[in-house]
Amino acid sequence: MKITLKDGSVKEYDSAKTIYEIAADISEGLARAACAGEVDGEVKDLRTVIDRDCSLNILTANDKEGLAVIRHTASHVMAEAVKRLYPEAKIAIGPAIENGFYYDFQCEPFSREDLDAIEKEMKKIIKEGTPLNKFTLPRKEAIQYMKDRQEPFKVELIEDLPEGSEISFYEQGEFTDLCAGPHLMNTKGIKAFKLLSSSMAYWRGDERREQLQRIYATAFSKKDELAAYLEHLEDIKKRDHNKLGREMELFATVDVVGQGLPLLLPKGVKMVMKLQRWIEDLEDKEWGYVRTKTPLMAKSDMYKISGHWDHYKEGMFVLGDEQKDKEVFALRPMTCPFQYYVYKNAQRSYRDLPYRMGETSTLFRKEESGEMHGLTRVRQFTISEGHLVVRPDQAEEELKGCLDLANYCLRTLGLQEDVTYRLSKWDPNNKEKYLGDEHYWESTQGKIREILVENGVEFVEADGEAAFYGPKIDIQAKNVYGKEDTMITIQLDCAIAENFDMYYIDQNGDKIRPYIIHRTSIGCYERTLAWLIEKYAGLFPTWLCPEQVRVLPISEKYADYAEQVRKELARNDVDVTVDNRSEKIGFKIREARLSKVPYMLVVGQKEEEEGTVSVRSRYAGDEGTKALEDFTDAICKEIRTKEIRKIENQES
Amino acid sequence: MKITLKDGSVKEYDSAKTIYEIAADISEGLARAACAGEVDGEVKDLRTVIDRDCSLNILTANDKEGLAVIRHTASHVMAEAVKRLYPEAKIAIGPAIENGFYYDFQCEPFSREDLDAIEKEMKKIIKEGTPLNKFTLPRKEAIQYMKDRQEPFKVELIEDLPEGSEISFYEQGEFTDLCAGPHLMNTKGIKAFKLLSSSMAYWRGDERREQLQRIYATAFSKKDELAAYLEHLEDIKKRDHNKLGREMELFATVDVVGQGLPLLLPKGVKMVMKLQRWIEDLEDKEWGYVRTKTPLMAKSDMYKISGHWDHYKEGMFVLGDEQKDKEVFALRPMTCPFQYYVYKNAQRSYRDLPYRMGETSTLFRKEESGEMHGLTRVRQFTISEGHLVVRPDQAEEELKGCLDLANYCLRTLGLQEDVTYRLSKWDPNNKEKYLGDEHYWESTQGKIREILVENGVEFVEADGEAAFYGPKIDIQAKNVYGKEDTMITIQLDCAIAENFDMYYIDQNGDKIRPYIIHRTSIGCYERTLAWLIEKYAGLFPTWLCPEQVRVLPISEKYADYAEQVRKELARNDVDVTVDNRSEKIGFKIREARLSKVPYMLVVGQKEEEEGTVSVRSRYAGDEGTKALEDFTDAICKEIRTKEIRKIENQES
Repeated sequence: MKITLKDGSVKEYDSAKTIYEIAADISEGLARAACAGEVDGEVKDLRTVIDRDCSLNILTANDKEGLAVIRHTASHVMAEAVKRLYPEAKIAIGPAIENGFYYDFQCEPFSREDLDAIEKEMKKIIKEGTPLNKFTLPRKEAIQYMKDRQEPFKVELIEDLPEGSEISFYEQGEFTDLCAGPHLMNTKGIKAFKLLSSSMAYWRGDERREQLQRIYATAFSKKDELAAYLEHLEDIKKRDHNKLGREMELFATVDVVGQGLPLLLPKGVKMVMKLQRWIEDLEDKEWGYVRTKTPLMAKSDMYKISGHWDHYKEGMFVLGDEQKDKEVFALRPMTCPFQYYVYKNAQRSYRDLPYRMGETSTLFRKEESGEMHGLTRVRQFTISEGHLVVRPDQAEEELKGCLDLANYCLRTLGLQEDVTYRLSKWDPNNKEKYLGDEHYWESTQGKIREILVENGVEFVEADGEAAFYGPKIDIQAKNVYGKEDTMITIQLDCAIAENFDMYYIDQNGDKIRPYIIHRTSIGCYERTLAWLIEKYAGLFPTWLCPEQVRVLPISEKYADYAEQVRKELARNDVDVTVDNRSEKIGFKIREARLSKVPYMLVVGQKEEEEGTVSVRSRYAGDEGTKALEDFTDAICKEIRTKEIRKIENQES
Repeated sequence: MKITLKDGSVKEYDSAKTIYEIAADISEGLARAACAGEVDGEVKDLRTVIDRDCSLNILTANDKEGLAVIRHTASHVMAEAVKRLYPEAKIAIGPAIENGFYYDFQCEPFSREDLDAIEKEMKKIIKEGTPLNKFTLPRKEAIQYMKDRQEPFKVELIEDLPEGSEISFYEQGEFTDLCAGPHLMNTKGIKAFKLLSSSMAYWRGDERREQLQRIYATAFSKKDELAAYLEHLEDIKKRDHNKLGREMELFATVDVVGQGLPLLLPKGVKMVMKLQRWIEDLEDKEWGYVRTKTPLMAKSDMYKISGHWDHYKEGMFVLGDEQKDKEVFALRPMTCPFQYYVYKNAQRSYRDLPYRMGETSTLFRKEESGEMHGLTRVRQFTISEGHLVVRPDQAEEELKGCLDLANYCLRTLGLQEDVTYRLSKWDPNNKEKYLGDEHYWESTQGKIREILVENGVEFVEADGEAAFYGPKIDIQAKNVYGKEDTMITIQLDCAIAENFDMYYIDQNGDKIRPYIIHRTSIGCYERTLAWLIEKYAGLFPTWLCPEQVRVLPISEKYADYAEQVRKELARNDVDVTVDNRSEKIGFKIREARLSKVPYMLVVGQKEEEEGTVSVRSRYAGDEGTKALEDFTDAICKEIRTKEIRKIENQES
């Protein structure tokens, strides 16, 4: 038989050979590095016997699939270690995942000390250099096999496989696992690994089933790769808004209040208020919006007109029971219908359009507690909401305006480089989830595509991501862990005006249905705050900082002058505090730096006499002594222009 | 017998006499004016026979009780007229009320034309000058009497009276009513009356009983008094926020959204935003508050700690069912516990207190649809909420600070003259409705009383008006109809810190329970807006106006200059528009005046050439031509200082 290798060379053998034997035949080094083989494009276990002509690519840790094999084998080693230390633990499943692997066990929760002990045991197993063997059993015998070993989750898994299947297992020493592979030949192929964390998980992800303990871990083929990854993880953790945001006292959650209901603390509120007032004034004074403030709930009657009752009811908090109560309310998941009624409050003519409505709008989504996360997966949030009622001939220009406004906001916040654009379309295989027919969807999606193309926006298209009433431009960003979320959305809706009997009077006095653009400029304030925390690792642009300046008197003698400096800055709307404690100046500077305050003003005798301040910033370190007036002018300009000052001279 | 009259003179008679006969004996004029008599301090029918020594005061329309008799008799006349025109109508009840009287009928709703016809028929009855006669029947016969007349409501009323009662009736012509009196002697005593309106009312105020039609009406003894009252009513109607606020497009309600859930329209939002930003900045920058933004709902767990679950559950919108759901939430009726958790987010020392937290906080109260009214009785509202965590030794000063802040807000809005102060205490006969014991209530009420007295505040005390957790200073105001509401409240709470385990560390390192002050500075924004509408009849101080200036170009030729003026004012944050329509200038001025815009700037050739504006204001009429810069400076100062400019020269 002829084996064509990746480099095009051909190997000929008389008899059948395993992939591992072929690798060893090529070179000892390759056999040592080999994790799996790609046979005619399919990933196979090294033990796979080749007995016919084929193409073969030996996969190593440099290949994604090869690295996954190392990790999968490491998960078996971890399970063996757990069974050695906790013989009563029941094993569930243990796959390789994007950046590592995990394994679920039914047992008591693991402490960090437990994980360290498991790591130690794993090292022993790896050192022992146990080979892994694969064998198969008929389904019935396989069930009995796992029953004998008292592994009920494995029994359940095998029972779910079709009658008459051959079931494959991998064993290493005393440990055997139900597994389709592929796996390394020997445990000593695991060169570098780390157990990262442990948390509760439900069997089969079903919260009505058993609670299991999941250990997350990772493995690499080289120690320095592992070290680099762990460092990256540390950096991520430091930026994680759910950790850093709490440390910086921007927000908190409280058990008895509930998951997904964060409390914004005074510093977080300052930031959100700066964002909100900026966006409100920007939209109203520069982009021609009028502002509304509409109720946070409505009767079911309204949601029946809007389609939410039929298409979105599970996502809403409903108050009352249609069978029992005269009136049933629901907390609003969107602002649309409320703003439609603002439009409908007066008769509008073609001259009144576009009618652009903005609202700093609090919305509610009914979600499970387990799905909640920091400021990004929440049950209540506040969004820079807006609906534009436009004439059909205005739709294109107004959609472009919405895109421009969103991009302006992103640019101002320094976030523009971090986003991608998506045209979110309906799911043509799930038409009943949407309002409107094929023609409606094709034409509205076409309009949006055109605008994106004409404006030179790079974008992807995604089926099944539209709102139930229309297609969207979604502006996407990733959090520190790489999870993508929609930050901003702009939607076209040519159908809903009919349901709400919205119209305008045209030149001829006829009633015409307008189009609606659903849009946000900066998205949800909570989510934007989370994004900013992770983007800047808490070192926000000066204008957004809850504390912009801290005045540090060298000693108590200069408290009066410090207060004078504070007052002058406060009069200019700078967020300023004084650290009046009787601590050493070095200590005060260190604390201010830890608090991530952008400007520290040290004041002592010289400064008081000269009416100056000694400026230290987190942008440029020691900026020297400046007249108070000059510093005030400079920071006011920095704040007013929302400058994102670059770091010139990072201090440790 | 000796009759002592009001003026001290004594009349002597040999035989028994009715009050009417005694009045006639004193003077013919008095008999004509007499409505009832006060015998030894008790109001009696004129037909009452006096047969012993007593003091007697003949009551006329100048006495409150006398006027009520005229109105009560007028209600009988109205019922007779209705029965003449609608013989199938069933009569319910028809009392005199504060400013008139009403009568309830079971029949079809009345139109204004119906009311006019009834008025006409009443005039006929009055002109006929039918005497009213009183008679009594034993209870059983009385029931039969009303059964024969097919008046089921009257039958029900008599059946509710005790067995063996004597039941009194008044008859006039063909009409007889179950009635205790007193009444005029003759229908012609009704000199001036007016039917005002008609609306639905439930029999006995019970929404499960029959729907009736209530006619509201009033009567006076003189035509000019009626005319003055009707004029007053017209003025009230013009100021009624529920009417004027809608006409001015400040708010709207929508049937399918629901009662008590007003939508603030763009102009109303502008006003509320001006108020909100003012209060937020005032509290944070001048009164030492930190700002929070906490969730609008929480799990029942939290409300159990706060006491709301036991003491306030019927007033809350509850989400979910404790029997069925893992988690039950409720929309918040108050912000207190949420702010407590902000306080609890860090350990606080005695130096950190007072810790003053403010929030622009949306709250929800579960109320029946029928009780909703405009912006004042609503299911959702937003309040300038705040809680101060204070050391016991700071309580007095901080309570005074809260009172000062509230008074400052009232003064700034020009409302201070219109309020009264109330010390709202617990109900000592209903102790189970409150947290804490007698000692707690006596001592906290004593503290507040002291502060009011020491600060020279005039106040009343009221039992049963406290919050369930503590006594209150309530600042009360009346709406145009004279109904009193609480606008601002300041409360002392020395008990709740225990429930939430709130403490601060004192000088000795011990954990001490703080006191809590619950307070608002300006109250609910919706209610404040309603109050301002009624106070100013829509002619708000300039700084609060949603549209502060309207530029009126004399013709299209001056559109560019008008736009230039608009831009300059907008740049200075003045709310300004341009009326660019090709209408006559007189028409534009009239419309601007109807819109209650405080300043109109007329611009034409002369103004463009000179860079000026011709100013017309609703304060002083024609204010002459001013340089644009001077006008801008003047209005910016008026806005910045929140001046309430007096009207110097009212234009029609």
